Order: sequence, then structure tokens, then C-alpha cells
Amino acid sequence: MKHKITEIVVRSFHLDMYMHVNNARYLEFLEEARWNYYAKVYENEWIAQEKIAFIIHNINITYRSPAVVGDTIVIHTSLKELGNVKLTVYQKLVQKSNGKVIAEAEVSFVAVDMKKNRPIGLKGKVRELLMEPEMEG
Amino acid sequence: MKHKITEIVVRSFHLDMYMHVNNARYLEFLEEARWNYYAKVYENEWIAQEKIAFIIHNINITYRSPAVVGDTIVIHTSLKELGNVKLTVYQKLVQKSNGKVIAEAEVSFVAVDMKKNRPIGLKGKVRELLMEPEMEG
Amino acid sequence: MKHKITEIVVRSFHLDMYMHVNNARYLEFLEEARWNYYAKVYENEWIAQEKIAFIIHNINITYRSPAVVGDTIVIHTSLKELGNVKLTVYQKLVQKSNGKVIAEAEVSFVAVDMKKNRPIGLKGKVRELLMEPEMEG
Amino acid sequence: MKHKITEIVVRSFHLDMYMHVNNARYLEFLEEARWNYYAKVYENEWIAQEKIAFIIHNINITYRSPAVVGDTIVIHTSLKELGNVKLTVYQKLVQKSNGKVIAEAEVSFVAVDMKKNRPIGLKGKVRELLMEPEMEG
Repeated sequence: MKHKITEIVVRSFHLDMYMHVNNARYLEFLEEARWNYYAKVYENEWIAQEKIAFIIHNINITYRSPAVVGDTIVIHTSLKELGNVKLTVYQKLVQKSNGKVIAEAEVSFVAVDMKKNRPIGLKGKVRELLMEPEMEG
Repeated sequence: MKHKITEIVVRSFHLDMYMHVNNARYLEFLEEARWNYYAKVYENEWIAQEKIAFIIHNINITYRSPAVVGDTIVIHTSLKELGNVKLTVYQKLVQKSNGKVIAEAEVSFVAVDMKKNRPIGLKGKVRELLMEPEMEG
Repeated sequence: MKHKITEIVVRSFHLDMYMHVNNARYLEFLEEARWNYYAKVYENEWIAQEKIAFIIHNINITYRSPAVVGDTIVIHTSLKELGNVKLTVYQKLVQKSNGKVIAEAEVSFVAVDMKKNRPIGLKGKVRELLMEPEMEG
Repeated sequence: MKHKITEIVVRSFHLDMYMHVNNARYLEFLEEARWNYYAKVYENEWIAQEKIAFIIHNINITYRSPAVVGDTIVIHTSLKELGNVKLTVYQKLVQKSNGKVIAEAEVSFVAVDMKKNRPIGLKGKVRELLMEPEMEG
């Protein structure tokens, strides 16, 4: 499956009292990776002009093994499902050193017209943009 | 259902570019609320001596309506299920001003013996402690 | 000196690999305390309408003794100097249990007219508001 | 002056209600850059074995111009002063696109023996390590 790879090195300030990356920080890592994946969408002028926002509806994240300071985390981001209203992205975080899975997440979005403050369907130009993320092999 | 209430006021640094509380911040709010709920467990001397950690296995969070700067968020935390291995807590975030649901989450944990670095069952003294959180009404 | 008190309990996610509150988190604690101190200013309708923002120019923070998980930090916030252009707030963080100083900071601001994107002097109504923070004894 | 360069792209979750990078986030950016600069020190086995920690004593940061979402920030980190007890690092953040200074900071540290919980002088092997950061040109 086509996907985009983002690498993040774990720093001291990512940890909590168990010396593991804190559960909330992973959501920032996931967001960082999605910005790389959907850079063309987020930076698209038309999207900005139309004030279309991609609002998270649900995140389901399973933490499989802890990451500690100095670890390099590889985040794979790929499109799982593009519905009429909802977009779901699959993200997997693995240890670069040994390929062990750190966490897996599904993140679903809706597109919202911020001028009218209401959801819009994933069709037309929005749909085209969402189908063309930045990908690697 | 017995539950514990925690209030958090949204500040400028909780927001993202949509002027809403960012998705990752909610996990810090949930953690803050769980510390209130399970204060007796986290601060228990025996738990500390035995080096028992409560490690998050899964978070499933649905974002229902945005919160903005100045909003007071009321977080209700309650025990959903206490299995033999896994503990699941249910957390609901509502707008204090109008009762509107901001988000709902289920957070599941396992207990880990950090000395041996392996999961332990939720039985005996650990189970007793988990069944006696700090509650209101 | 008149000042406002804010209390924050240190949580697991505030820590770093030294098991102390991380240096960056203290700036969020300081901001939380300033929101309490200047609630009347930040929530003032006229300030909002005029799109006046208080932008930080400088923070000088000295870390005197570490705080760890479970500690209750008392933050004292008071006005140090109200110049023609620059406002300086003094903030002291102390351990609630023993009064030990955790950190001290001076934070200076300028007021900016966000419509014209330029600094405005601290005079007239802005100055009056800044001189009437929420205080305790 | 010899220095190390770190680049960070501003993301949505770094912002606050003024749509600028929040003041506290910059301290995480500075820390990220210092980890790159002093990777050899932080990852040094002897430092780890001896449980030597580098604890921040003071941060003096001046915010010169705001950064917004999508900006690439270049952080220059260099050694300013290596005293007998205190180490001071100078860090400058600039806009990659136009070279404009976003912020400047001086960060000073002391070395602490975490086994005995007391400061140690910056001499011998510790001093040698601090004088050999990772540098570019």
C-alpha cells in the first residue's frame, strides 16, 4: 500500500513518569506525520480560501510497546477509507532499530466549511485532493 | 453510575490553528481527570514499592463538538469494566455552560510489574484498589 | 504586594527523563497563572472588539529547585512594572508543602493592535485594565 | 562561531489563540536543538553510568517576531560560555524563508550528580565532552 514515512526522535520532554513516551504525545506525532502526508492538501490555496477545515471525528489508538528517550520512531501513514463524508487514515509507529510495532492508530476526519460552520461531503475538488497525498513507493 | 468530576478551563496554549482545543491536548485533560479519579491508587505506597505501573493499552476517543478558549470543560470519569487483565475507564467531556458533549473516550489499561517488566493480573490488592476510586455522588 | 495565587498539581505528563517537571511546562504553568491574574483583561469585550493582543516580548526564568509528580505548586503572580510600552509581571512558583522556591520568572509584554499589526502604547483604557487584575489580599 | 543547525516546521498544534507559535513551545524547540547539539554528551555511556544530569538553571528568551503554521524555523545553537560551574548556550531562531530573527535565547546549565543529588564542577571528562558538541562549519 502506498504510504508516507515520517521519522521522529524521542526527546526527554516527550516522556512521563514511567520514562516512556506519554500517551498524549503520540497524538502530536501522528499529527506531524499526517501533515507530511497531506501537505498538498493543508497548503492548498483553494482549501484556505474556501476555509475548509479537516476536523478529527475519532482516534482509536492501541499502544503495543513503549518508546524511550533516544528511540527513532518511524511513522507510516496511509489512506484506509475515503467515504462520502468520512476519511479514515491508518498510522503505524515502529521502532526504526528493530521494526517492533510501538502503536497503531486509525484517525477519521470530516471536512467542515468554516464559513458556514457545517460539514461538507468528500466530493469534487476536496475528494481529488484527498486522493493525492504525498507518498513514497 | 458513580463517577468523579474534574473541571478544566481552556487556555490559549491548548488551541490549534482552527482555534479549537487540539486533539492531543484532550488526552492530557483525560489523564488529569484519571489522576483525580485514581489518586488513591497512584499515591498508594504499596503500589509504589511494588513498582506497579498502569500502562495504557488503548484509547478510543470521539470528538463531538469543539471547545474554545475560556470554555470550562467538565470531565466525568467512571469505571466501565474491570476484567482479569484489562481495566476500562469511560470519560465524558461536557461544556459546563450548556451540557453539550465535547468528547467521549474509553481508555483501557493493564497493570505491569516494572521490576520484571511484565503484565500482572488485576487481582488481590491491585483489584481492591482499582474498585475504590475517589467518587462523587 | 498584591498578587493572585494559582495552584497546579504536577502530573506524570509534565515530567521529563530526570523525573522533574520539564523546563517548557513551567511556561504553560506561568501562562495558566497569568490567565487567572488577568482574566478581566483577557475576557474584556472591548479588548476583543479592538483586537488588542498581549504579546510576550521576554521571559527570564530561573529554576531553583525541581518539582516532581504529585507536588502542588503555588504560583504567585504580581505586576512588577507598567511602562509606557512594556508591562512586566513577576511570577514565583513555590512548593505548597514547604514554601521552597521552585522557580522565579519575569515576563514582559507589549500590547499589539492586531488589525494594524503594530504595537500600541499602554495608555488610556488598556492601562486602566492592566492596573486592575484579579487579586488576593 | 561554530554552531549546530536544527530545522523545525511549525504545525497547527504549536499555535495559540493568536495563531502564533506559543511561548512555551519555543522551549521545546530549543531543547530539541540542544539535543542535536549535545547528542554526543547526552548519549555518552559514561555520563549515563555516572548518572550525571544537565539541569537548566536559567532561560532568558526574547521573542522578536512571530512564527505561524507552515513556517520553517532554523535554530542555531552554539556554546556561549563554559564556566567552572555553569554552562551557557546561545540559541537563535530564524525564519528559513527570509532570515528574520524569530527569537533569541540564552540557556544556562549546571551538571548534577544524581546519585548524590548535588552539583559537580564542569571539569575533567565532563568539561571535555561539553567542549566537543556536534557542529557544522
